[in-house]
Amino acid sequence: MASEKCFANGSSAPGPVPKGHIRLYSMRFCPFAQRTRLVLQAKGIKHETININLKDKPDWYFEKNPLGLVPTLETASGQVIYESPITCDYLDDVYAEKKLLPADPFEKAQQKMMLENFSKITPYFYKIPMGRTKGEDVSTLVKELKEKFNQLNDTLGKQKFYGGNSITMIDYMMWPWFERLEMFELKQCLDGTPELKKWTERMMEDPTVKAASYSPDIYKAFYKTYIDGQPNYDYGL
Amino acid sequence: MASEKCFANGSSAPGPVPKGHIRLYSMRFCPFAQRTRLVLQAKGIKHETININLKDKPDWYFEKNPLGLVPTLETASGQVIYESPITCDYLDDVYAEKKLLPADPFEKAQQKMMLENFSKITPYFYKIPMGRTKGEDVSTLVKELKEKFNQLNDTLGKQKFYGGNSITMIDYMMWPWFERLEMFELKQCLDGTPELKKWTERMMEDPTVKAASYSPDIYKAFYKTYIDGQPNYDYGL
Repeated sequence: MASEKCFANGSSAPGPVPKGHIRLYSMRFCPFAQRTRLVLQAKGIKHETININLKDKPDWYFEKNPLGLVPTLETASGQVIYESPITCDYLDDVYAEKKLLPADPFEKAQQKMMLENFSKITPYFYKIPMGRTKGEDVSTLVKELKEKFNQLNDTLGKQKFYGGNSITMIDYMMWPWFERLEMFELKQCLDGTPELKKWTERMMEDPTVKAASYSPDIYKAFYKTYIDGQPNYDYGL
Repeated sequence: MASEKCFANGSSAPGPVPKGHIRLYSMRFCPFAQRTRLVLQAKGIKHETININLKDKPDWYFEKNPLGLVPTLETASGQVIYESPITCDYLDDVYAEKKLLPADPFEKAQQKMMLENFSKITPYFYKIPMGRTKGEDVSTLVKELKEKFNQLNDTLGKQKFYGGNSITMIDYMMWPWFERLEMFELKQCLDGTPELKKWTERMMEDPTVKAASYSPDIYKAFYKTYIDGQPNYDYGL
């Protein structure tokens, strides 16, 4: 996994993307950017990574992506793609090897419906830790998250992965938040959902996930700097 | 355009979808469901329509779509697809004739980015009229909407449609809210955006749009019943 110190405001813009490569603008600990990192890794796509200081963004970055968010892809011909599911679908479209989305239209639609449902779960991973930091009562939020996990547990049923018995796009789309459960102090939310828990264990065995992950200790150390208002995006480099 | 009186709570569930057909659960005046209606129409897909009373939903409808929203598609084999962009992509995938999404991965990604951007605009079409109804000052919201329209005007530039010089998926995804500008009393927001205005005029000439539309008078009459808290989903039948 390529990882370099982040570019902050005042930095020079990187040069053009080399031919035959694609460039990912990322932040090492961002779960949305990790989706794209997982797809790049799973498909073995030659790429370079430019990490962005999200608290002190370079001016030039807004010329790439007016929203200033990561992940963003840039091609050698200067095409720019952003929004994490769009970057992942684009990569799956362009790089034909090891397709991650199913070819069957209904199975593809099912993955998109699961993703849409999951987009309503991710806010809990911010609301709960932030609420705790402020000393708020988060018990209702935790209860709601557990209900969502129950639904995910039922959806999985006896399947190994969310798209069937092998890992596909939807697993990589959901994984980054589960990798951070310990960092968010939410790991106990898996206690009532044995199938979902087994899925997280299977995911951790996946070579792609292994290559695109950080240890709980690194996440926790980064997260402490984040909560303190001085995120150290280069932690561990 | 097939249109039947809506099914309310207490109604019997419709039977299985006939072979060779696809069923759309819709509401005649819903802009999200209109997206799917436009795609069905544009591609000439044989379908039947079941309209749902969204204020008094049939119990059986939640067995089709647990969210209880429209649009929902149901196939003859009982597969169910919901979320308007997912239903539209599914139809474009399954019915190969007259593809509405571009084959080029980057052009497709561009349409998805435009759609994502547009999803941040649609809330204004509710917030502004609702604010007015409550007697609130909506001038800031109107200003923001005009800025969004300015961006859409610039994105279009000298192109005829959002995907180039012919009508494609993204145009149909955006159209339903523009068809309702008069109903929302927001038509003057187009005054500063001549290219966008010309696009709306071009859209109104499209045979698919013509076939899947209602007149401003019908919208206004329905909207009055909606604002009054007694939406007449069967207005005009």
